[in-house]
Amino acid sequence: MKEERVFNFSAGPAILPIEVLQKAKQEMLSLKRSGMSVMEISHRSKEFKEILEKTKLSIKQLLKIGDDYEILFFSGGASLQFALIPLNFLNKSADFVVTGHWSMKAFQEAKKLGVVNLIYSSEKENFSTTPRKSDLKANPSSDYVHYCSNETIDGVEFKYDLEVGNLPVVCDASSNIMSKPIDIKKYALIYAGAQKNLGPSGITLVIVQKDFLSRAKSNLPTMLSYKSFAEHDSMPNTPNTWGIYLIGLVCDWLREKGGLERIAEINLEKAKLIYKEIDESNGFYRSKVEPSSRSTMNVTFSLPSKELDEKFCAKAEEIGLRNLKGHRSVGGIRASIYNAFPLEGVIRLVEFMRDFRRKYS
Amino acid sequence: MKEERVFNFSAGPAILPIEVLQKAKQEMLSLKRSGMSVMEISHRSKEFKEILEKTKLSIKQLLKIGDDYEILFFSGGASLQFALIPLNFLNKSADFVVTGHWSMKAFQEAKKLGVVNLIYSSEKENFSTTPRKSDLKANPSSDYVHYCSNETIDGVEFKYDLEVGNLPVVCDASSNIMSKPIDIKKYALIYAGAQKNLGPSGITLVIVQKDFLSRAKSNLPTMLSYKSFAEHDSMPNTPNTWGIYLIGLVCDWLREKGGLERIAEINLEKAKLIYKEIDESNGFYRSKVEPSSRSTMNVTFSLPSKELDEKFCAKAEEIGLRNLKGHRSVGGIRASIYNAFPLEGVIRLVEFMRDFRRKYS
Repeated sequence: MKEERVFNFSAGPAILPIEVLQKAKQEMLSLKRSGMSVMEISHRSKEFKEILEKTKLSIKQLLKIGDDYEILFFSGGASLQFALIPLNFLNKSADFVVTGHWSMKAFQEAKKLGVVNLIYSSEKENFSTTPRKSDLKANPSSDYVHYCSNETIDGVEFKYDLEVGNLPVVCDASSNIMSKPIDIKKYALIYAGAQKNLGPSGITLVIVQKDFLSRAKSNLPTMLSYKSFAEHDSMPNTPNTWGIYLIGLVCDWLREKGGLERIAEINLEKAKLIYKEIDESNGFYRSKVEPSSRSTMNVTFSLPSKELDEKFCAKAEEIGLRNLKGHRSVGGIRASIYNAFPLEGVIRLVEFMRDFRRKYS
Repeated sequence: MKEERVFNFSAGPAILPIEVLQKAKQEMLSLKRSGMSVMEISHRSKEFKEILEKTKLSIKQLLKIGDDYEILFFSGGASLQFALIPLNFLNKSADFVVTGHWSMKAFQEAKKLGVVNLIYSSEKENFSTTPRKSDLKANPSSDYVHYCSNETIDGVEFKYDLEVGNLPVVCDASSNIMSKPIDIKKYALIYAGAQKNLGPSGITLVIVQKDFLSRAKSNLPTMLSYKSFAEHDSMPNTPNTWGIYLIGLVCDWLREKGGLERIAEINLEKAKLIYKEIDESNGFYRSKVEPSSRSTMNVTFSLPSKELDEKFCAKAEEIGLRNLKGHRSVGGIRASIYNAFPLEGVIRLVEFMRDFRRKYS
């Protein structure tokens, strides 16, 4: 029986590669003919350890990560990291670069736990831009600088790997991890909730430089301690095994697609199509974001009125273009076009945008 | 194509009802004809909110919980609760009842965060028993008393709902939640990692009395705060949506089976069959656990030698009786027979035990 699928622009939890879902479906009752689901086997079993090792290796190969980094999996989403990072690494102070909703949240959570410096904020510019490298001045004694490489809600993305003085860089890459190659050497710690580009919700990938990790505090409660996660290969307790399994399948899929270089080309092609339609719409579609900071993952825009925003979403839903509504805090339209979102769906959206503009402008 | 399944005695992640796996498989690419997997939809969507509400309601109905309790879902496993409970509720001191590996761990984690009193420990008895009610004396000024209702590794289970003076009772019920009816009024807080009786790993059910919840500290980091989870209906961030969905399906299955009264009868019948074989084996199979504290969920025993323990497991594997090896810290044999484990598999195990004894005693 063929299953009807839609074009799902959800910002997260978001579309997964259909090949991954099919594989998970096929193995649901019996992983590799074991007679058990991956959800039914011990995290300490040979079968699961193989999955964990394979997944870590795939991540290292895709992102070209050397043995000077640890690959860890935490539960709890990126939001838990907003607390764990200061709990583990904040001694004197930490510097924050705020370019949208999520980096603001990370800043506010860290504030509860220590001294924080806001070294850049685009809040006054309505989170429409990212800093130029020369805008940023670090506090040399800070323990780290934190930023968010792609702001899902605002549609703002850094086009370079941030560097601020000699500070260790900590990056929330939840919504653009693995969407393009990065220069891993520039990062002390990268974390990413899986539910956008990597897998299901409820699991977070953490890539951390071993040297930086060695500075983490000791004597923290086991489940709040980076060191305990590293010492126990992400398993101080039972991890989200289903999540790790799916991340592994997504990595397999990425490798089959040609790796991050190739996926980055496709992602750019997809984003360009929508931005082109926005730019050529004579102001009917408006992007608040400065062209140089436009996100390749989350294309945000609005129409001349709230009523038109709503009509746009409603009409789109009718033809299977789902979940285009912007985040409740900012309104407008948001097309999230992560790795797994097919080019075909973007073409359909652009056609729809053209038709809609003709009718309502 | 019929899929070969085995009898999976894994202690956790553990066997799930086959009907649940089949339903999840069937809906994998399209939840209720939405054209999207449950893993691909927003946690704020109508579709997912329905799942969350339905799951909470099922839990309330199955455990006969009134509106004076909150039903919450956390990520991170029961081990995360070992830290969160003291972080939120420990002001003066907390009392601990230790009857095995897990309650000991909870005690040790809490120790890092405040004053703790060990008011009972069966460590000297090799964790082979539970206290009589008269054994327990609370410190009247303590904030709560903590215990574990079923020790998965040791195979020790409380046969009554603990009461200690007037202290609020906090219970780790990870491995016997929903295996039998309980008197919910006796508990201030119950928590349970899902991966034994409820669903997949990476998600934890918390049932908390609203009155007790009101004593939780404020100003904690959002993701470490019970209050923020309650205020945001378990969604201060994106929860493990797949986990909640599966717990909902497991609850549907439990209701179809006749609820907790009926499942408790079946569980008792299953456990009795194995304990009877142990007791009638003339000491070939040995249970360390006092008969009145024997677990209905995890039946632990050992054979006359380590070699025989190993041979027992190896021979059992050959005929599809999988994962009978005891926890690495205690050795021996462990048959975990949670709700989803079929009576048929227990009968096969007992037959195998008889044959094995005849051959090797």
